[in-house]
Amino acid sequence: MEARIVEIRKGVLKKNDLLAAELRQRFQQARVFVVNLVSSPGTGKTTFLERTLRDLRGQSLRVAALVGDLETDNDARRLAASGAPARQINTHGYCHLEAEMVSTHLEGWNLSEFDYLFIENVGNLVCPANYDLGEHQRVAFLSVTEGEDKPLKYPKMFNSADLAVITKWDLAEACEFQLDEAVKNLHAVRPDLAVLKVSAKRGFGMEEWMRWLAAAREKMQKPETVVP
Amino acid sequence: MEARIVEIRKGVLKKNDLLAAELRQRFQQARVFVVNLVSSPGTGKTTFLERTLRDLRGQSLRVAALVGDLETDNDARRLAASGAPARQINTHGYCHLEAEMVSTHLEGWNLSEFDYLFIENVGNLVCPANYDLGEHQRVAFLSVTEGEDKPLKYPKMFNSADLAVITKWDLAEACEFQLDEAVKNLHAVRPDLAVLKVSAKRGFGMEEWMRWLAAAREKMQKPETVVP
Repeated sequence: MEARIVEIRKGVLKKNDLLAAELRQRFQQARVFVVNLVSSPGTGKTTFLERTLRDLRGQSLRVAALVGDLETDNDARRLAASGAPARQINTHGYCHLEAEMVSTHLEGWNLSEFDYLFIENVGNLVCPANYDLGEHQRVAFLSVTEGEDKPLKYPKMFNSADLAVITKWDLAEACEFQLDEAVKNLHAVRPDLAVLKVSAKRGFGMEEWMRWLAAAREKMQKPETVVP
Repeated sequence: MEARIVEIRKGVLKKNDLLAAELRQRFQQARVFVVNLVSSPGTGKTTFLERTLRDLRGQSLRVAALVGDLETDNDARRLAASGAPARQINTHGYCHLEAEMVSTHLEGWNLSEFDYLFIENVGNLVCPANYDLGEHQRVAFLSVTEGEDKPLKYPKMFNSADLAVITKWDLAEACEFQLDEAVKNLHAVRPDLAVLKVSAKRGFGMEEWMRWLAAAREKMQKPETVVP
């Protein structure tokens, strides 16, 4: 890659970081807890998010979602079926979401009316790792069908995550998935990473996810007091 | 995306296209048939390629492989176990292979000693679609675990492919995979695309793949005669 491009890429990332910092401040002021969901295509992010939106609404929490894809608005329609406001971001060929796209697609929403905002990124284990969207927490998904080695091959994505969710647990046996091996590889790139296993299709593991989410949100709302 | 970046990106793609054209000429002169394998992470490209290398060697064909990953040389080691020469290309963060990386990693190999060269791209359904590697044929993989909608969401990858291979067929039932729906979506982005279904783990569908490969190679070796 040419030096000129590296320089310009740095500029783009810097601009994104500044916009992401502004977004984070807006989210904080509105007291909305924001989660960025990242993974390969087809790990079941949308099914998981659909169920999450339903479950949170069942607890009378106010939720909304943005979902990124190169093309189609299938996922926004799937998510909207939960009753939550959901908007599609089409990147038309771009391989990741950027803070600016998020900002544009928030227009007209009063963020303080939401407890949670979920941003489902473009399915891609590489590029989204570099783009902060101002989220509070980044959750990386790994499906049992993908193989235990993915954290080692795509280290930046798992290193930048706050939680790893192993999906499609109902297929673990059929795939001869080795959980110990996967966790070892996750911890090789991020030693303290929390790991959950779920099957959104069967409802398995969702309660633990709900607990993680509530605890993370509570932490955001009560920043550590400065020792006088 | 800023206009300046779009311009520079165009330049990179143009340079890649020129290098890819040179590679294609080299491959043609050496009479080596080159296949570029593209997909999401974890569709089973490496398992499929391992078996392909073994099967072709069993037919006394001379084969070699290059394999791209951000990090690790796991896949090159797996492929080399087949007895075929195999080299790893580590992109260290880049999300796709480029013609230049292929060219560099061919050094020291006498291409005319090979009948087939396989290039396993970085697992990513977006960016590799834009980079010609000088291959004769591009094969896109879709695993039954990913869902039938992926061709619509990542249209460029499937539109630029010469063959779609549906992998992990042994899990189709457990995943409630709808073949008709997947084929409809593949044909929506590329109407004449050939589709094979395989399970490299169980050996299912490999004979049909061998036939496709032999026919495609034969076609390359006998270019259509110009009508006088």
